[in-house]
Amino acid sequence: MQNLQLISEFTETKIVFFKEPDFSTLPNDSIVVFDTNTKKLFSKYFPKTEQFTFNAGEMYKNSTTVKDILEFAIQKNATRNTTFVAVGGGVVSDITAFCTSIYKRGAKLVLVPTTLLAMVDASIGGKTGFDFYGIKNAIGSFFTAQNIFICFNFLKPLPEYEYKNGLAEILKIGIISEKKILALLEESPKELFFKVTDPLKKIIYLAIKAKLKIVKTDFTEKNSRRLLNLGHTFAHALESLFAFSGISHGEAVGWGISQAVKISSILKICDKTYVKKIQLLLKKYNYKTLFYDDEILDKLSLTKNEFRKKLVEFMLNDKKNTDARIVLILPKKSCKNIIYPIEKKHLIHLFKQFD
Amino acid sequence: MQNLQLISEFTETKIVFFKEPDFSTLPNDSIVVFDTNTKKLFSKYFPKTEQFTFNAGEMYKNSTTVKDILEFAIQKNATRNTTFVAVGGGVVSDITAFCTSIYKRGAKLVLVPTTLLAMVDASIGGKTGFDFYGIKNAIGSFFTAQNIFICFNFLKPLPEYEYKNGLAEILKIGIISEKKILALLEESPKELFFKVTDPLKKIIYLAIKAKLKIVKTDFTEKNSRRLLNLGHTFAHALESLFAFSGISHGEAVGWGISQAVKISSILKICDKTYVKKIQLLLKKYNYKTLFYDDEILDKLSLTKNEFRKKLVEFMLNDKKNTDARIVLILPKKSCKNIIYPIEKKHLIHLFKQFD
Repeated sequence: MQNLQLISEFTETKIVFFKEPDFSTLPNDSIVVFDTNTKKLFSKYFPKTEQFTFNAGEMYKNSTTVKDILEFAIQKNATRNTTFVAVGGGVVSDITAFCTSIYKRGAKLVLVPTTLLAMVDASIGGKTGFDFYGIKNAIGSFFTAQNIFICFNFLKPLPEYEYKNGLAEILKIGIISEKKILALLEESPKELFFKVTDPLKKIIYLAIKAKLKIVKTDFTEKNSRRLLNLGHTFAHALESLFAFSGISHGEAVGWGISQAVKISSILKICDKTYVKKIQLLLKKYNYKTLFYDDEILDKLSLTKNEFRKKLVEFMLNDKKNTDARIVLILPKKSCKNIIYPIEKKHLIHLFKQFD
Repeated sequence: MQNLQLISEFTETKIVFFKEPDFSTLPNDSIVVFDTNTKKLFSKYFPKTEQFTFNAGEMYKNSTTVKDILEFAIQKNATRNTTFVAVGGGVVSDITAFCTSIYKRGAKLVLVPTTLLAMVDASIGGKTGFDFYGIKNAIGSFFTAQNIFICFNFLKPLPEYEYKNGLAEILKIGIISEKKILALLEESPKELFFKVTDPLKKIIYLAIKAKLKIVKTDFTEKNSRRLLNLGHTFAHALESLFAFSGISHGEAVGWGISQAVKISSILKICDKTYVKKIQLLLKKYNYKTLFYDDEILDKLSLTKNEFRKKLVEFMLNDKKNTDARIVLILPKKSCKNIIYPIEKKHLIHLFKQFD
């Protein structure tokens, strides 16, 4: 039986969904990049290849790791025809893809995402990068993989919070552009999405397809691709407040979507029924929805007033802003959204109306 | 009176030829990158901008300078809307363009080439890069400038060998695709091209136009753009033999073109009249044409036998090769050329027939 395939027309990336992992098509001189976690779990699937491993964790998504990967490639006499293979979550795929994009002005790239987040989001759409000078993905490129191999079974070893990380992005893409995703999340028992099941496989497929469709129209994020930032301007600011430890990306995105929808409602861009529907979904999957969440304020030791001010400062520094305004993505109704630049003062004023 | 302009359709780069330097259109928050030479000469033309300077010389085209430029940009709160301006020769434009291409996944780029080589070659066509692990331009990207500002008068302070560096590339582009360039070089007294004169201005314009035309058809160098490597596989190998000191790039390219034409003739790809024509031109502009040049062998302290073997080894390592063969560009006749992959053994055999 054939494996399922998706082809991104614009980027010519072929996405293959494997029943059983099979990397026999990879050239023997491929350079496979792991972190210490994925090395242990998946190294055996890549016999005969050159393997490079770096320490797991966001703090190693830095310029030293970039340099180490590039040096390793040169030592192995890699050419622009060499295939670089990233086996891991967002950190591994972002940094490996970046290195591939600049090695001899661009070699060949295969991504093997091993987390739900990387499968539905990080590996799809050609964004690469690493953190620099304390700023997430400050340096990066747009570069497309030739193949993305999705092996559902690779998700099995993941803890629950990793599923939650991915589900936040799946929810996001559902709100932006795919009703079927929201319907599946609403109708099914939530437990089904915290392990490898048929509904999870189906929703992964739908999420990838929906993201590819958006990326195709605007690869370098000048216009419509910005919709994919729904909830993310809030989330990045919150993660920065936490200095990227103590809150997961998925937690922050879920919380951010809730704030975007509420602002949309106050500004009369969407109606209250829609807010309710999204809030219910977020709560079902255990995301925080309140702007002033007691646990968050507690962990940060901030008053409501301080929290509001600091959050807006970080939102203002987001790299997606192109002038002094903060660019928000606001849902209008099912699968309609608008890009809404807003003044700092106006945003603070809105936050004051929140619970 | 309007300044002359050229527009590269494919990349949407606008090339402006200035009678008098005028950078008043640059935004005040531009980041202008100089080396220590160009800082002294041209800094005054960029008042009110943020200025970054690094040590002049190929040895500073490295990852440390890349990091320094990126850090400077972050400290100055540059966004993806910030314009990076490179003022200098090939080193400054290649490394600044590379940094711009990866800063927040790509900011805005303006090139102000200040050498003949940079005007006609390095700044045209979107190749960026820096040297890494002893390999020239091992790391880089394809990225296009929004504007290239050509100020002929900036060439005035240049020593003669800098003109010779540029002329080798002009000769190359003439052989590949523009008869008018060869005619101008043949008919005019050579002295005219070693200072800022009307014939020099005319030939710069023609060379840029011809290179843009080739780049347009094949931006990422999969096919026809490879023609621009005429003489360069030889040249890079010779420069590597010299460890990049003791021979200029232009010297090496002139010498390399001579070898390519001779091989083309032995293989009966071009006729002897054509070889003679090109050799005469090379000699007129003081390039070495003999394969076994006494001065070169002397400086390298190599016998003919050793020279031949070592040269081929370096040619084999060229990043443009995609398999075990060496890819040569061989002129057929005026403005017709072929891409010719050749076995190492065959090439050594041919070299043995050279004087």
